[in-house]
Amino acid sequence: MTATVSFRPTTGERAGSVRDSLPGEVSDIVERASSAAPEVAATSPRERQLWLEAIAESLLDHRDELVRLADCETALGQERLTGELTRAAAQLRFYAEVAVEGSYLDLTTDSPTATTPALVRINQPLGPVAVFGASNFPFGFGVLGNDTASALAAGCPVVAKAHPAHVLLCARLGDLARDALATAGAPAGTFGQVVGFDAGVQLVTEPAIRAVGFTGSQAGGTALWRLANERDVVIPVFAEMGTVNPAVMTPASTARTSEVAAGFVASFTLGSGQFCTKPGLLLAPAGHGVAAEVGRALAAAAPSATMLTRGIAEAASTGVDALVEGGAEVVARTGRSDKGWSADTVVLAAPSTALHVGSRLLEECFGPVAVVVEYASVDEAVLALGQLQGSLTATVVTDGTGTDPHAALLISTVARNAGRVTVDDWPTGVAWTWAQQHGGPWPATSAPGSTSVGAAALDRFVRPVSYQSTPDPWLPEPARAADPWRLPRRVDGRLELA
Amino acid sequence: MTATVSFRPTTGERAGSVRDSLPGEVSDIVERASSAAPEVAATSPRERQLWLEAIAESLLDHRDELVRLADCETALGQERLTGELTRAAAQLRFYAEVAVEGSYLDLTTDSPTATTPALVRINQPLGPVAVFGASNFPFGFGVLGNDTASALAAGCPVVAKAHPAHVLLCARLGDLARDALATAGAPAGTFGQVVGFDAGVQLVTEPAIRAVGFTGSQAGGTALWRLANERDVVIPVFAEMGTVNPAVMTPASTARTSEVAAGFVASFTLGSGQFCTKPGLLLAPAGHGVAAEVGRALAAAAPSATMLTRGIAEAASTGVDALVEGGAEVVARTGRSDKGWSADTVVLAAPSTALHVGSRLLEECFGPVAVVVEYASVDEAVLALGQLQGSLTATVVTDGTGTDPHAALLISTVARNAGRVTVDDWPTGVAWTWAQQHGGPWPATSAPGSTSVGAAALDRFVRPVSYQSTPDPWLPEPARAADPWRLPRRVDGRLELA
Repeated sequence: MTATVSFRPTTGERAGSVRDSLPGEVSDIVERASSAAPEVAATSPRERQLWLEAIAESLLDHRDELVRLADCETALGQERLTGELTRAAAQLRFYAEVAVEGSYLDLTTDSPTATTPALVRINQPLGPVAVFGASNFPFGFGVLGNDTASALAAGCPVVAKAHPAHVLLCARLGDLARDALATAGAPAGTFGQVVGFDAGVQLVTEPAIRAVGFTGSQAGGTALWRLANERDVVIPVFAEMGTVNPAVMTPASTARTSEVAAGFVASFTLGSGQFCTKPGLLLAPAGHGVAAEVGRALAAAAPSATMLTRGIAEAASTGVDALVEGGAEVVARTGRSDKGWSADTVVLAAPSTALHVGSRLLEECFGPVAVVVEYASVDEAVLALGQLQGSLTATVVTDGTGTDPHAALLISTVARNAGRVTVDDWPTGVAWTWAQQHGGPWPATSAPGSTSVGAAALDRFVRPVSYQSTPDPWLPEPARAADPWRLPRRVDGRLELA
Repeated sequence: MTATVSFRPTTGERAGSVRDSLPGEVSDIVERASSAAPEVAATSPRERQLWLEAIAESLLDHRDELVRLADCETALGQERLTGELTRAAAQLRFYAEVAVEGSYLDLTTDSPTATTPALVRINQPLGPVAVFGASNFPFGFGVLGNDTASALAAGCPVVAKAHPAHVLLCARLGDLARDALATAGAPAGTFGQVVGFDAGVQLVTEPAIRAVGFTGSQAGGTALWRLANERDVVIPVFAEMGTVNPAVMTPASTARTSEVAAGFVASFTLGSGQFCTKPGLLLAPAGHGVAAEVGRALAAAAPSATMLTRGIAEAASTGVDALVEGGAEVVARTGRSDKGWSADTVVLAAPSTALHVGSRLLEECFGPVAVVVEYASVDEAVLALGQLQGSLTATVVTDGTGTDPHAALLISTVARNAGRVTVDDWPTGVAWTWAQQHGGPWPATSAPGSTSVGAAALDRFVRPVSYQSTPDPWLPEPARAADPWRLPRRVDGRLELA
């Protein structure tokens, strides 16, 4: 019998372990989710709002305990984790509000004409969703994070896979969620959790699972995506993966290089650089000493970095070596400590010629590492940006006057290959609002039109069904003339508010 | 130098040929589409409406010539083809209207708060789309059909792959489209076409192609989907594929068995059974002689069937043999002619025990072939429906009174595994309206949330980008405060009409 062992990143010591789920246990948990699916799908968004509120309340009620446990396993710090727990509770409430608003159902009705039948189109929940949370946000993107909150809000049961980097926290969160849901009257099987690598693989291949949400590395996300693509019935995998997230300075922005350098360092070292939105590459005009200035800013900030896992710490270190092999040179480096899973924070510089197809510089180096590439002309910067992989975010740094002559060109250039564009604003924060987009072109996301944060997160877990010539009493309840959920809708092509 | 040869299905004689595109030609056509993409994306929906109107006008202006050519290559009949050409022109106009309405851009704005930045989210065209049209609808789902119309309406250049079953028509349609677009002022490269199997493979692997639309067989659709999944930058493939499309009669509907049998025969033999929405399976209560009645209806109608290609004719014949091997028996068969690519029209019957996992009865037999399976109880029917593949459509036949006691259960059962549910209405017609859904769970569609017909068809060819803290002049034009396209939008969570 195997177990998933938890470690303290600050010391590398063992913190505990959780027994891995056996194959029969995984099947049982999926079976319970599958049995609950029709009942969950039939509940109104207002009922599900009570469930999500109950989970949010439970998180807040157990805040101190949960933050201590999370800090023990992740070393992300109590302040950050307290903020993140509060965020996770707010997200649960936000997705419930999005469901109650009802646009996610996209109710559309066509009256019959002489040549066309009556049609009523409405989204339906897909069924049980497997959620693989992230290592780096144990609350916000963890087993009760955006994916779980948006899937439950959309009317889908969830089976989460516990993250090995904080398995004790996952187990506790799972217990709290199940208790809260039971007290709030949700069907048994609305939320379940499995533990262990093999259990995760089995989860994706279980026929009753209808979609997968994943946040993590490109290697992990594409592996799950390939696995799902080999099923008899292929299911969508919404994998949000790591990317380079370029930032580009306009020529005029060099007037404020020291401010930009400090902001860039703060952003790429935040949370030890363990953000999927970390800006990993700064394109700057040559001849203004930007790389050196970023190096000085790093030395001045002198951040220390404890990484989430031994593997991540090692990959950050070998990643720096690979960047050097790829043509970059180290400009500044702060020393790691010899306790636990510490890593150097590093600024490198590289010539723009190093940004060619196949270059290591085009790939993410997860951790507190960034590369400054100096460009000779804006045309060269545009060409270099065209070489990059699809990214979650891209940042344009202007002179701040609102009249920077190169801003428009660089903004439209980066928008072709990113999901979110930030202007004079670092990308590391991701607001959970209606207009948020946290997904981008491959390989930032396996489904480039999807988002794991923001109101549209629910759209991943529903699919439309059209009902033709179907008498009102036999339509799904929310689509009936009585309009019990008070939905916004489109009638004969015209939008109508609720 | 290879060529694609066209044949007359009525006689099997050669009708002509078109030279296959060389690899360099394919690259050039894609390059022109790629060069045109930014300009196409920047045009307003009203400008693109003029382009689509011009193509529609050209189709109608060349109606007699096009119908004659299509009938020569497909044998679908001048009446049907004239109607389909009119439909194709109307579709081009419909998708343009959907674009002008503007909801497909999903404009969403969040005002900044103390803790969140300003965000503006708007959909952007993906870029060049490869379109693989269907054999069975040379106008409606062909190189100028739904996929091309919705991609152009959404602001994406299109490179179509000519269908080998009507390659002469494709070549002519391509010329007309290019001429119409040029006259209407569209950039060169807005529409291109390639010919030949190898050219189609190359098209999917060309880096500049950003999405694929496909209508056809499961084998063809999944092959393209696998090819796209092996790219460095994976792109979405929207493959709409053939399925069984079950119909189920309630017990009470047996009061009108002869009417149902006649309707079923008319639907499954329409267009020689060459509809992706053909109902291929009728589940009927045992003890009412439904299979025999369907057999009598077929004998009475005595349709003849000329198939689109030799391969389709042969597959229809071997498909019947496979159904017999799978446990079905032939109830009625009308003889094929010995001229050209004729096929039998066939009704088979099978016990419900034949509907087990792996059974040939669960797969589509493309052509004028259908199976009647009699069930002993409604519970057995529900179980049998649960064995079926995902389908584009599913039909429930009731007693027509609106109070049929089993209708609600069977409607909700089939809705779990189909994209469109028709009640007392055969599924073979597909209206191009706002509420249409022509897509379904795998393997009906490679992307179960997508549709190739109806207003939502545009959604496949755009992706969202959020602009954070971005001054108004640097937002994409339609997202600016001046609102030049007069878009409906969501502001701080509230829908606002245009």
